[in-house]
Amino acid sequence: MINVAVLGYGVVGSGVVEIIRKNSLSISKKAGKQITVKRILDIRDFPDSPDKDILTKNADDIFNDPDINVVVETIGGITAAYEFTKRALTQGKHVVTSNKELVATHGPELLKLARENRVNYLFEASVGGGIPIIRPLNRCLAANEIRSIVGILNGTTNYILTQMKKEGKEFDVALKEAQKNGYAEADPTADIEGHDACRKIAILSSIAYDEFVDYKKIYTEGITKITPSDIMYAEKMNSTIKLIAMSEKLNGMIETRVSPVIIENTHPLAGVEDVFNAILVNGDAIGEAMFYGRGAGKLPTASAVVADVIEIVKHWGSFGGYNWNVKEENNVIDIMETESKFFVRVKVNDKDKGTNEIEKLYQKVEWLKPLEAANGEELVFITECILEKDAKDMLKKVSQLDCVEEVLSTIRVFDYRP
Amino acid sequence: MINVAVLGYGVVGSGVVEIIRKNSLSISKKAGKQITVKRILDIRDFPDSPDKDILTKNADDIFNDPDINVVVETIGGITAAYEFTKRALTQGKHVVTSNKELVATHGPELLKLARENRVNYLFEASVGGGIPIIRPLNRCLAANEIRSIVGILNGTTNYILTQMKKEGKEFDVALKEAQKNGYAEADPTADIEGHDACRKIAILSSIAYDEFVDYKKIYTEGITKITPSDIMYAEKMNSTIKLIAMSEKLNGMIETRVSPVIIENTHPLAGVEDVFNAILVNGDAIGEAMFYGRGAGKLPTASAVVADVIEIVKHWGSFGGYNWNVKEENNVIDIMETESKFFVRVKVNDKDKGTNEIEKLYQKVEWLKPLEAANGEELVFITECILEKDAKDMLKKVSQLDCVEEVLSTIRVFDYRP
Repeated sequence: MINVAVLGYGVVGSGVVEIIRKNSLSISKKAGKQITVKRILDIRDFPDSPDKDILTKNADDIFNDPDINVVVETIGGITAAYEFTKRALTQGKHVVTSNKELVATHGPELLKLARENRVNYLFEASVGGGIPIIRPLNRCLAANEIRSIVGILNGTTNYILTQMKKEGKEFDVALKEAQKNGYAEADPTADIEGHDACRKIAILSSIAYDEFVDYKKIYTEGITKITPSDIMYAEKMNSTIKLIAMSEKLNGMIETRVSPVIIENTHPLAGVEDVFNAILVNGDAIGEAMFYGRGAGKLPTASAVVADVIEIVKHWGSFGGYNWNVKEENNVIDIMETESKFFVRVKVNDKDKGTNEIEKLYQKVEWLKPLEAANGEELVFITECILEKDAKDMLKKVSQLDCVEEVLSTIRVFDYRP
Repeated sequence: MINVAVLGYGVVGSGVVEIIRKNSLSISKKAGKQITVKRILDIRDFPDSPDKDILTKNADDIFNDPDINVVVETIGGITAAYEFTKRALTQGKHVVTSNKELVATHGPELLKLARENRVNYLFEASVGGGIPIIRPLNRCLAANEIRSIVGILNGTTNYILTQMKKEGKEFDVALKEAQKNGYAEADPTADIEGHDACRKIAILSSIAYDEFVDYKKIYTEGITKITPSDIMYAEKMNSTIKLIAMSEKLNGMIETRVSPVIIENTHPLAGVEDVFNAILVNGDAIGEAMFYGRGAGKLPTASAVVADVIEIVKHWGSFGGYNWNVKEENNVIDIMETESKFFVRVKVNDKDKGTNEIEKLYQKVEWLKPLEAANGEELVFITECILEKDAKDMLKKVSQLDCVEEVLSTIRVFDYRP
């Protein structure tokens, strides 16, 4: 019998306990041994919980118990979770987590610690909720050199963008609704500013390219500035707006970013709606493969945690974690040196003059017909594929033109097809 | 160092050798040991092959070599492949295959033989080409009770149906083109009659429900009778025609079939085009997850084979294959006892009389407006959800009506949403 301790009895932690109890028979059969939750750590009181007999507020009840061999960390954050994870690994206890923040921040150190103590540190649930992606990327596509990963990795922002598109809602309204429906947290910053997606693409890239990709180096832009008008323009372009996280290996370096993009409706990611996530992987042998499903939620995420626990028990005694080399030199291409097409909307007081000046600046742009609601005060265009630094320069010049009152939007146009 | 022998130097076999050579460094790193192809068995001559030094026509060169620990079987079929697989497993050599026919036919026996000899018999490449599906189903979704699997599992038929839809081609023309482009074999029977998809859904179901599902018990219908007119009717229904393989666990029994269906364009499988495959899995914890990619082809399939080899080497000494219980009692629901909606087209000589008689027979049908090209000689309707045996009975009665000249089409309408 394998005894598991769960640290943190929140949404995911309680889901883990629930799944192990509910599917106990089939789980034990697949793992080859019975798996039992022996202890749950949480500082809160749960007097009515069915698990109250095994709940404890004292971490020593877990770390001093030699019969507990696997620790599930579903606390979140990088303070207590970090300390507990180090303590467990040092004691030779396997650790499974859904904590993307901790993996993206301290992954290399924790993986090294796991290796030194001959235990596993697994985190399938940290990306894509219940969608199997980390193990398929590492194991099933092991014969491939991975070229690129492009995905919708955050369910909250995808839900908000879907609502804005379908109901014509403003961002703030859609966000409030997402919060009301439990799809966004009270403090939604990590989701709407793209930080969550950033950590996830950092983890996927580190596995795909077999070297640590530091999330702090990834250019990240959220969706707070997207307006219903932007979405209507995208529709006129037979496209839709999505928060896309991407990374691509180019001549030994990695190009990676998180940003809203205008993406053609024929692209497989364009049809991914609501809280669903999808990840497109391109490998040299397999070509393109896509993984799609619920990217968050109690049971989907908990099921990914439990799958990692089963994996450890099934291959008991064997361990073979990831080895994230931390390169001394920088391995991420500076965003200023990357190229994109940009969709730009500006408010003008003189349309003809504005048109002239913009054509002088950019040399070549594709003009879009402004929406009727814009009352003729808008100029809308798409640039050619230009360097980020040039795009920034030119946009500054545009904003300084006398005839331009305001730059209303700049959104990348996604033209990457793996 | 691990020495591999490849049996069969055809499309997939030569792809395996190519990938192991090309990605040698990263493969060895991931496996933890160097992997080398020591021998290739094929009865044909390949005087110009870069592998001619390790090619042999004598199986003893492989089976009498104790240094060969892993055998890749890419011969296909169930005669020589079956004998060689038994011989390898009995000798304690691990076997990896892409041979769906052999797995679907002799899976339980070969898995038992592998267990008895403490080796692995792995077959990720047998379903979905390079798409990781078997391991994710077994491992990553291990914490789930799988409820259903619905998929497009055959690239050839999906290519043909896509061509028929996009170019308005007749089936025969689209098939010839598929053969010309290398997407269909000279004898296309196994693909176009649904046998290939049938074996694949049998394998997936056996893994998902942890009991052997005999492909011979699965109702299978191909796409040879589908016409451009059927596809145009489907389009009028905002739908498309796809060859769908499905299985669902219902009260301990399995409902499963392979057949063309009319499927709504909003369904995630409707947009899967050309030679791509996609598999929708529904589990009690994860909800719906989809896996999408190239379902066939030399390198995608070979990459799945090599991933299995890496898996074996990485967990050397550990084995933990599938255990397909063969139930004594029947575990597949008789197709006659299953329910579907049917799309029916009949050629009539008297429209009013036909309408009357059909309404009398079916009580309730939904009438569709015939295409103009039908010259008013057609009646087209969709039945309610009815038992297969009743559908058969009624269709027989329809065909015997004086006013009916011919039943032109009957196609299931897919209304299953996981």
